Amino acid sequence: MSDRVSLESFYDGRDCLVTGGLGFLGSNLCRALVRLGARVTVVDSLIPEYGGNLWNVHDIEDRIEIQFSDVRDVPAMRYLVGGRQVIFNLAGQVSHVDSMVDPYTDLEINCRAQLSMLEACRASNRNVKILYAGTRQQYGRPRYLPVDEQHLVQPTDVNGINKMAGEWYHILYANTYGMRATSLRLTNSYGPGMLLKHGRQGFIPWFVRKILLGEPIAIYGTGEQKRDMNYVEDVIDAFLRAGATDATDGEVYNLGGDEVVSLLEFTETLIDVAGGGRYEVTPFPEEMRRIDIGDYYGSYEKLRAATGWEPRVPLRDGLARTLAYYRENRSHYIEPSEEG
Amino acid sequence: MSDRVSLESFYDGRDCLVTGGLGFLGSNLCRALVRLGARVTVVDSLIPEYGGNLWNVHDIEDRIEIQFSDVRDVPAMRYLVGGRQVIFNLAGQVSHVDSMVDPYTDLEINCRAQLSMLEACRASNRNVKILYAGTRQQYGRPRYLPVDEQHLVQPTDVNGINKMAGEWYHILYANTYGMRATSLRLTNSYGPGMLLKHGRQGFIPWFVRKILLGEPIAIYGTGEQKRDMNYVEDVIDAFLRAGATDATDGEVYNLGGDEVVSLLEFTETLIDVAGGGRYEVTPFPEEMRRIDIGDYYGSYEKLRAATGWEPRVPLRDGLARTLAYYRENRSHYIEPSEEG
Repeated sequence: MSDRVSLESFYDGRDCLVTGGLGFLGSNLCRALVRLGARVTVVDSLIPEYGGNLWNVHDIEDRIEIQFSDVRDVPAMRYLVGGRQVIFNLAGQVSHVDSMVDPYTDLEINCRAQLSMLEACRASNRNVKILYAGTRQQYGRPRYLPVDEQHLVQPTDVNGINKMAGEWYHILYANTYGMRATSLRLTNSYGPGMLLKHGRQGFIPWFVRKILLGEPIAIYGTGEQKRDMNYVEDVIDAFLRAGATDATDGEVYNLGGDEVVSLLEFTETLIDVAGGGRYEVTPFPEEMRRIDIGDYYGSYEKLRAATGWEPRVPLRDGLARTLAYYRENRSHYIEPSEEG
Repeated sequence: MSDRVSLESFYDGRDCLVTGGLGFLGSNLCRALVRLGARVTVVDSLIPEYGGNLWNVHDIEDRIEIQFSDVRDVPAMRYLVGGRQVIFNLAGQVSHVDSMVDPYTDLEINCRAQLSMLEACRASNRNVKILYAGTRQQYGRPRYLPVDEQHLVQPTDVNGINKMAGEWYHILYANTYGMRATSLRLTNSYGPGMLLKHGRQGFIPWFVRKILLGEPIAIYGTGEQKRDMNYVEDVIDAFLRAGATDATDGEVYNLGGDEVVSLLEFTETLIDVAGGGRYEVTPFPEEMRRIDIGDYYGSYEKLRAATGWEPRVPLRDGLARTLAYYRENRSHYIEPSEEG
C-alpha cells in the first residue's frame, strides 16, 4: 500500500486507547498516532519497576489524554474501553526474571487483566480492533530457524507462559465471539524510550546503559547466541498496519529483523556506533541460564503478506538514533545517584 | 514391566496426595492406590457444580484421609504438600462451557492454584513427583490425526488455555528447578464415579444419564465427529505408571484409545450395551458449536514407549461396567427430584 497515505486516512480522527502508553513501545506508538491525527488516550499506572516514564511523552503530552490507571482495575477498564475504535493493548509485566520470582503478579497482569479487558470489550464494545503485544519468548528454545508461526510454542519461563495465555484469550475471543483481535509476537525491540534503570527487560537497554555509564558490558555464555531485532519505528509501523485492516482479525504474526547477529557482533556494533565502550564474556548467572533460549530469529513473511510490513531501519542507524536520544535525555533515564 | 508387581513394590507404603480426590478420576485413583498399599490423603472442597462426591469413596473412606480444602487455599496447600512422595494433581475446573461464562474462576483454579501448588513444593518438597492431568482440549481442532505430542496446541476455549498454562507451569518448574512433574493429556475418560448431574463435563456422562433416565440422547451436529476414549481403569493405570518412574520427569504424554468411533457409533454401542435407549441428531447449540473441535483421536506411542502403558478395556466392556455401577448406585448420582 502507499503506506503513509493509507495509514493517515485510517487513523485520522480515530479514537485509540493505548494501554502501557507511557512505556517504551506505548509512547512511541502514541507519538505516531498523534502524527497521524488520531485521538489518543493512554492508560498507564507508572508501576515503578516497569517501563512507564512521563518523559517518554513530554513532547506530546498536551495532545494525548493520560489516565493513570491499572489494567487490573476492572471497573476503570470497563469504562475506559467504551467507544474506542482501536485498542493497542501493550500493558504487561515484561520481565522474564521477575516472573520467576513473583509468578502471581505476572499472572494478574498478563492473564487476568487480559481476560477482564476482553470481557469488557465483549460486553460493551465488541467491534473494537484490539492489538496485543506477544513475544518471541512464547516459542521457547527454537527447534528450527527462522521461527515461523507454525513453530511449537513451549515457553521457558512464567512470563512466556502467561503472555501465551494472554495472546490465546485474544484469539479465542476473536474466533468465538467474532471480535477483532490480533497478536504481534515481537522479537527484541529497541530505541528511544526504553527503560534503562535495571537489566530485567532485555539485553539491549542494559547494554545501552552500560555504554552511557562507561561500564563494561557483560555478555553471558559464549556471546555466540544469535538474535534478530527491530528498531522501534518499525515495531510501531507493524502495529499501525495490523490495526488498520480487517485481514489481521484473529491472527497471530511474528515480527523479525533482516540482520541476524550474535550478541558479540551486536555489542561490537553498538560500541563502534557509540565511539567507545568495552565488554567482557562471562558465564551465565544461574537464574539467567535456566531461561536462556539459545539462538532465535523469526520469519515475518506472514505479516508482510498481510500488511506489506518489513523492517526498514538498519541496525547501525537504529543504534545511532537510540544513543543520540539517550545522550540528550540521559537524566530522565538514569538517576543522578546511578551516575559514576 | 511385570506391571502389577512393580507398581505394588513402588506404591506400597508411599505417601500420596490426590487433589480432586473425591472426583471421578481422583476417587478411582485413590481406590487403586489403597489396593497397592499406599498411604493416601485426599484434598477436595466438594464445590457443588464440580465432580466431588463422597459416595465415590464410600468403600475406602476408612483407608484414606480426606482434607476438605480448596487448592486455591495457599497456606493449607503449603502445609498439605509437605512430606508427600507423589502428588496426583487432579483438581481442576473441567467444564469448557463454564470457563466461557466465568473465565476468572477457571483462571484461579487452573492457573493460579497450580502456580501456588508448585511454589509450595519448590519451597518445601522439591523432590516430590507431581502428576498433572492435562487434556486433549489443549490441542484445539486437530490439524492431523492421530494427534501426537508434536501437534501445535491451539485451545478453543478458556479452559483449554488455562489447562495449557497449568501444564506448562509444571513442565517449566521441572525444567528450571529440576522438579519432577509430568503431564498426561487425557482424552475422553469414562467409568464409575463420573458426575451425572449436568452435561457440562463431557458427553459420555451426559449420555449415560440419559440412558438411566430413559430420555433421548441429543447428538449435536451430524454425529460423525470421531473420538477416542479410555475407561477409567486404563486412565488410572497410566497415572500410576507415569508416577512410578523418573523417566517421565518433565515430560508430556497423550493418552488415547484404540477404538476410534463416531458419536453415532458410540451412542449406538451404548444403547446396545444398555439394552435400550434412543437418540436424536440435532443442530449444535451456538455455545457448543463455537468450541467444538471436529474429529479427535490421539497417539499414545510416547507413553507406551516410556511406561509400557496401553489401554486394555474394550469400549463395550467399559460401558457395561459403567452402566452396571450407575444402576446399582443410581441414587448417589441422580437426585430424586431429577427422576422422571
